[in-house]
Amino acid sequence: MHENSLIFPAGEYRERVARLQRKMDEDGLDALLLTAPADVFYVTGFLTRFWESPARPWFIVVPAQGDPVAVIPSIGADLMRRTWMRDIRTWSAPDPRDDGVSLLSDTLCGTVPTEGRIGVPMGLETHVRMPMADYLQVSARIAPRRFVDATDTVQRVREIKTEAEIAKIRTACSIADRAYARVPEFAREGTPLDQVFRAFQIALLDEGADWVSYVAGGAGQGGYGDVISPAGPQPLARGDILMLDTGAVRDGYFCDFDRNYAIGRASDAAKRAHAALYRATETALETLRPGMLACDVHRILTEALAREGADPGGGRLGHGLGITLTEWPSFTPLDTTPLREGMVLTLEPGVCIAPDTIMVHEENLVLRADGCELLSTRAPAELPEIEA
Amino acid sequence: MHENSLIFPAGEYRERVARLQRKMDEDGLDALLLTAPADVFYVTGFLTRFWESPARPWFIVVPAQGDPVAVIPSIGADLMRRTWMRDIRTWSAPDPRDDGVSLLSDTLCGTVPTEGRIGVPMGLETHVRMPMADYLQVSARIAPRRFVDATDTVQRVREIKTEAEIAKIRTACSIADRAYARVPEFAREGTPLDQVFRAFQIALLDEGADWVSYVAGGAGQGGYGDVISPAGPQPLARGDILMLDTGAVRDGYFCDFDRNYAIGRASDAAKRAHAALYRATETALETLRPGMLACDVHRILTEALAREGADPGGGRLGHGLGITLTEWPSFTPLDTTPLREGMVLTLEPGVCIAPDTIMVHEENLVLRADGCELLSTRAPAELPEIEA
Repeated sequence: MHENSLIFPAGEYRERVARLQRKMDEDGLDALLLTAPADVFYVTGFLTRFWESPARPWFIVVPAQGDPVAVIPSIGADLMRRTWMRDIRTWSAPDPRDDGVSLLSDTLCGTVPTEGRIGVPMGLETHVRMPMADYLQVSARIAPRRFVDATDTVQRVREIKTEAEIAKIRTACSIADRAYARVPEFAREGTPLDQVFRAFQIALLDEGADWVSYVAGGAGQGGYGDVISPAGPQPLARGDILMLDTGAVRDGYFCDFDRNYAIGRASDAAKRAHAALYRATETALETLRPGMLACDVHRILTEALAREGADPGGGRLGHGLGITLTEWPSFTPLDTTPLREGMVLTLEPGVCIAPDTIMVHEENLVLRADGCELLSTRAPAELPEIEA
Repeated sequence: MHENSLIFPAGEYRERVARLQRKMDEDGLDALLLTAPADVFYVTGFLTRFWESPARPWFIVVPAQGDPVAVIPSIGADLMRRTWMRDIRTWSAPDPRDDGVSLLSDTLCGTVPTEGRIGVPMGLETHVRMPMADYLQVSARIAPRRFVDATDTVQRVREIKTEAEIAKIRTACSIADRAYARVPEFAREGTPLDQVFRAFQIALLDEGADWVSYVAGGAGQGGYGDVISPAGPQPLARGDILMLDTGAVRDGYFCDFDRNYAIGRASDAAKRAHAALYRATETALETLRPGMLACDVHRILTEALAREGADPGGGRLGHGLGITLTEWPSFTPLDTTPLREGMVLTLEPGVCIAPDTIMVHEENLVLRADGCELLSTRAPAELPEIEA
């Protein structure tokens, strides 16, 4: 048996599929249809940046028993053959007459009994990555087989990381750790923010990132207004708080954490905000255990910030992490997903310092039976100041 | 009236919406629902790398008349307010009870007559970026209004670039031009391919890319086997042909072209392949005119390669370019999209040199009334050799 594969040995993927199939059995599914890059990578090890092109859909069918089937554009056949996948069916895409619809429908009909249920992740935090018209056409062609929601099936399996996955995320985190340590070299008073973003991406690549899928941040007097914007040309000024956040990728796995820096001397308000965020995160790191719910983490962080006299921001205060920048669960008051041993998570509390002025703080961890193990090197307790 | 906006002045976006609304009128659409990052950016100027997180859907509703409405997660409100958009409706996402479904349904019902048709791009090269279950729920809630395919509506408008857009793509191309000129500095015999990929990304950032969404390539003796793989650790060897391909981004616009380099002396077969690709591209650059069809470009390139005695590879031989790495049309034998003045396109012929050994070649251009205007600096006629 061919046992080499990409990123991990084939045994890693076999075990993932076995776990998926056990959960499919519990959930009464006769197959899974996966279309999202992260799900395809999870099952096969097929890693490419070619997803950046929206031109072609890609399909993985996981049957109730046996190995998965790849139904993919022929341009991907060479790379897919370097994974552990052996049943690879291709068509020449994009084909305006039939862009894999027949091949996928035939594969599903050949795999699933006539009255069978085919799971497709269609819930919160998912998308079906294929044209809607084709999805509806496949739905009609495979009847009386039918598509049903498999969000829970996929998420309950994928959210528990193997030690091999945890090692990859730890590596991505350590790359970002080293890049953050270099920020004082290039984030100086007068440097335009877009140049800081470029220099930070260069530092991440230089420290070993394969690519940098996400950099965001902000800079402003005593805090910043927003955390998802690209950078503009405004220069860093004395009194600014600079925040950088990154999802850098190594071997297909992400880190996702941020760091704050004061340009020149930090204001007392900024120092207090940073200390409150640090201590609230410390409380969560000490408290989290398997069996708690995602909403408990939101409550723990919010209450800890309130005890510090800080004004907690809204939104979610952390999330899962792994093959994408963000994974479920979401640390909101509404997410009741149980925390389980082996989950890789971010803690991401934020505070309002003044109107339109916030500060955020983020760490990455893996949840063990006895609590949190940090994957990012802990942020300094005191807001670092970069000499202006 | 507030007229500043992000990336372009508000007038650019107003004109885009006016063009969309004229086409919607022709196509009998009462509104458009847009969910894809490129479509959202096209209408609003909302530019962020936050799309990397699959956690939240984002919606833009373009009514038959009047300004578009943004129905978005509250985390994006600050940035959206910096665009020309004024009607911004938010919810706190992700919300497992109702992740924008009610707000979007209400917006559509308030915008579209009871029997109205709401266009959603659902054809080739599109995806609906929201959970499938929510899409089906919104479809039910808005009845008897219904979703219909608006792929043609959006594509016929977006495919004609404004001069402002062309200038952005030209800038992205010139960043890549300068980075390609530096490849001989870091792609040396013995350098691992993954280090070459990192150095190339660093060069792109250094030359002004905001971020690098795509780098692929290959290296092998006398050619390479595949063009979508990430890089491995194998060192460049004398006799290798190295290919690098990039989609680097500036102000939200992509370039997409590649370059080949011989490590040491190029074999005669590699030189002949490069010359055939160069001349076939030259033929296409001289021949393309508005009014031809996408399939004509495929034929022109394939016939030109055959005349050179080369073995044309399969697949598509170029495509549209702009806000995503690849846009329609596709230069395949089956795509009958008419070429029109103002389209930005790639020419991407490939040849088989030997079994599992190919070479590809790519240029970016804008189609003018009288033919092609290059946006990339033309590749050298002879395959460049990097001293080993």
